[in-house]
Amino acid sequence: MPIRVTVWNEYHHEKTVAACRQLYPRGIHGEIAAALREQLGEAVVVRTATLEQPEHGLNERVLAETDVLTWWGHARHDDVSDEIVDRVQRRVLHGMGLLVLHSGHHSKVFRRLMGTGCGLKWRDTGERERLWCLSPGHPICDGLDESFELPRTEMYGEFFDVPQPDELVLISWFEGGQVFRSGCAWRRGKGRVFYFRPGHETFPIYKNIHVRRVLANAVRWLTPVPGSPYTIKCPNVPMPGHAIQP
Amino acid sequence: MPIRVTVWNEYHHEKTVAACRQLYPRGIHGEIAAALREQLGEAVVVRTATLEQPEHGLNERVLAETDVLTWWGHARHDDVSDEIVDRVQRRVLHGMGLLVLHSGHHSKVFRRLMGTGCGLKWRDTGERERLWCLSPGHPICDGLDESFELPRTEMYGEFFDVPQPDELVLISWFEGGQVFRSGCAWRRGKGRVFYFRPGHETFPIYKNIHVRRVLANAVRWLTPVPGSPYTIKCPNVPMPGHAIQP
Amino acid sequence: MPIRVTVWNEYHHEKTVAACRQLYPRGIHGEIAAALREQLGEAVVVRTATLEQPEHGLNERVLAETDVLTWWGHARHDDVSDEIVDRVQRRVLHGMGLLVLHSGHHSKVFRRLMGTGCGLKWRDTGERERLWCLSPGHPICDGLDESFELPRTEMYGEFFDVPQPDELVLISWFEGGQVFRSGCAWRRGKGRVFYFRPGHETFPIYKNIHVRRVLANAVRWLTPVPGSPYTIKCPNVPMPGHAIQP
Amino acid sequence: MPIRVTVWNEYHHEKTVAACRQLYPRGIHGEIAAALREQLGEAVVVRTATLEQPEHGLNERVLAETDVLTWWGHARHDDVSDEIVDRVQRRVLHGMGLLVLHSGHHSKVFRRLMGTGCGLKWRDTGERERLWCLSPGHPICDGLDESFELPRTEMYGEFFDVPQPDELVLISWFEGGQVFRSGCAWRRGKGRVFYFRPGHETFPIYKNIHVRRVLANAVRWLTPVPGSPYTIKCPNVPMPGHAIQP
Repeated sequence: MPIRVTVWNEYHHEKTVAACRQLYPRGIHGEIAAALREQLGEAVVVRTATLEQPEHGLNERVLAETDVLTWWGHARHDDVSDEIVDRVQRRVLHGMGLLVLHSGHHSKVFRRLMGTGCGLKWRDTGERERLWCLSPGHPICDGLDESFELPRTEMYGEFFDVPQPDELVLISWFEGGQVFRSGCAWRRGKGRVFYFRPGHETFPIYKNIHVRRVLANAVRWLTPVPGSPYTIKCPNVPMPGHAIQP
Repeated sequence: MPIRVTVWNEYHHEKTVAACRQLYPRGIHGEIAAALREQLGEAVVVRTATLEQPEHGLNERVLAETDVLTWWGHARHDDVSDEIVDRVQRRVLHGMGLLVLHSGHHSKVFRRLMGTGCGLKWRDTGERERLWCLSPGHPICDGLDESFELPRTEMYGEFFDVPQPDELVLISWFEGGQVFRSGCAWRRGKGRVFYFRPGHETFPIYKNIHVRRVLANAVRWLTPVPGSPYTIKCPNVPMPGHAIQP
Repeated sequence: MPIRVTVWNEYHHEKTVAACRQLYPRGIHGEIAAALREQLGEAVVVRTATLEQPEHGLNERVLAETDVLTWWGHARHDDVSDEIVDRVQRRVLHGMGLLVLHSGHHSKVFRRLMGTGCGLKWRDTGERERLWCLSPGHPICDGLDESFELPRTEMYGEFFDVPQPDELVLISWFEGGQVFRSGCAWRRGKGRVFYFRPGHETFPIYKNIHVRRVLANAVRWLTPVPGSPYTIKCPNVPMPGHAIQP
Repeated sequence: MPIRVTVWNEYHHEKTVAACRQLYPRGIHGEIAAALREQLGEAVVVRTATLEQPEHGLNERVLAETDVLTWWGHARHDDVSDEIVDRVQRRVLHGMGLLVLHSGHHSKVFRRLMGTGCGLKWRDTGERERLWCLSPGHPICDGLDESFELPRTEMYGEFFDVPQPDELVLISWFEGGQVFRSGCAWRRGKGRVFYFRPGHETFPIYKNIHVRRVLANAVRWLTPVPGSPYTIKCPNVPMPGHAIQP
């Protein structure tokens, strides 16, 4: 059974910034969807959803049929309705994987799942970035070299205000003197969340082959297994099976 | 300088349940405050705050002067205003310690800081509980034996829907067959959160000497240090000090 | 490509204890191998190795062809040569999965990889055990119910002297009042280690269907991916790719 | 009661490298001891111990009277006797704090406690290093700015082959393109271990005021509390207190 991915995008800069439209004529979501199809082939079926659609393209049926949701937003985080944030959180807790990209660090969805401010330092001067693998046996590092470079990026620097990740997979070095935890994994309820820093609306980050590889590895790793039972309820329960009667 | 503690209580069962009023004539908050004064003496100054007070007793000045906030709620979580939840979260991120007690697992404040459902299984039949120290060198275990027992408690059982704790300090065994992660520690921003399971409105849990010891140990451990700078903002920054100019 | 598993056993009690021989006529290793073949079918090829064989059955070639090694030992930990311990550790660091079972907690191999005493409390009176899933979305919990019971087991109790696991997957409740972290996962170098508590030489633990399921899930989860480069060496390196020249 | 610190040094480069002798005429141990006295005053009593002394200066009595041991070694790791390594490990498990410095990453003591290869990449060309605080509320970051710089250092780069730290406190940026987890904390048994990267035999790292601050903060943080009971033994135990009789 192929992994069912929904690629979400606020789809804003593509309409307002010529350089972005030129770089990603199909939208950032179109590029990410293409990258996943390129890397994962028949192992994946990808659809896209955007802010402007009814329910932001994330109605109950779409989410129920989504194994992994990827999230790109930047300028319009506040326009995402709280109802959809509730819904996405609930789906993650029930097992859906969530891949949060770049400026998605400040999305309502990510802040909801982290419980922290999710702030960071930034500088958009096109400096060089090098990402280092911190966990060579982790599936998200599969097929990477020990590090890879992005020649021109926006800088994100520590302190990155998130809970300590369950697994820290990638750290970035920036030419200008900063470091950043660029690949962070957490469990939330029955689901998993992976934050992956690279991305930008005008630097061609999602065309980079290493970045595309990480996107694909992350989608694979975020795919849920059936697992053991989970409920968001808080039930009153009898004593288990054969346990002792007081 | 003494640790400045604010003991918060929704202060509801004390007014509606005779057995609770009888057990805790000063309110649950009064008992917790007394326990902290008994255990910590001059090392602590304790005030209390309750739901019914203006701003639930947690105005900006009170929180600014609070090193550690303890939280007890059960029946009226929904009556806590979102504005106060925002404020408490912000103070934790800036360094205030937060001690969440028993049914506080479902408080808005705790769910906000965890990002998960915070559900669990429960059964209120007065069964026996034994708490085991999982981290013998942890300050919160200081002075405890390897385990201690509560003869009659409400049961809380796994799966406890919280992020994996940064440190797992106590696990409970229940007569009826369940286990529970009863002492869990997390960092959030610059602050720390400790969840401590024991507590009830009619079982005399907060009179237990071991429970009182843990409350005191937790308050000490949650007390903030000045630390290094933290901001909830997301600032655009120049290159640091002498870093390389591209 | 099938997962290549080597099932290791000290193979001692089977020769000295009639009840053990009767329970496991093919040896404990034979039973575990059969369980894996039953659960994983063609996805696995299993061989066995025992203490008495030359190099304990773990020569360089065997280990090089092993994706996942399972370890059962109890009475003869000290008879395992340090050279083989070095070799197993090196293979784990280079990516091999290691599944340590029951009394293997005190094996040289496990203590080497943990760096701690690996002690625990125990009692062999055939009491009831219930294992609870702490991570419902974890592949090792796949297909389990929220808990399962072993009617008669040897008790292992906390404090279990191991480093805090990277992921805590299962906790046991014991009839007699103890709890135990029964399913613990760690990364070491490029490889993974999973400790799984159940097992005994005379209680029929490895015939239990839930235990067999966990064994199979663990083997799957421990299987290495190619990953990113790893070396145990400590090399002097030039500046990476295009990094800045000082 | 003051913290009792023992500063250990292999004391080799001071005798063989003129630049080292000139920089640290009292030995590296003398400088570290002086830094701790300067920063902690009467809160600390410091003694030193070196490789060449009987039992490397670490007899049972000295260790029994040591709250925190600091470790500096580089060229003579192999000359440390396994008996002393056993002894130090045992003391850490029973609660002693251990501060491992710079090239101590490859010491027998550290490798024993980690269970991994503890390798890394290195380059000794005097490049610039900047250390970033990853945990602004952590006592080890107390009084630091969000980052600090060492103008000329030996580079240590990832992959650093250690278990994922329980708390990651500092990450280094290096001019030449590498990053490194420079401040890592683990619990082992009842004790704590902190690895702190900075240090060198000829760059004046231990004269840097920020480095001295971290050394002092780490010593404070590593100081044991009495805690709950710990034993390295593996005792057969009766059922606890009032637990159920089967």
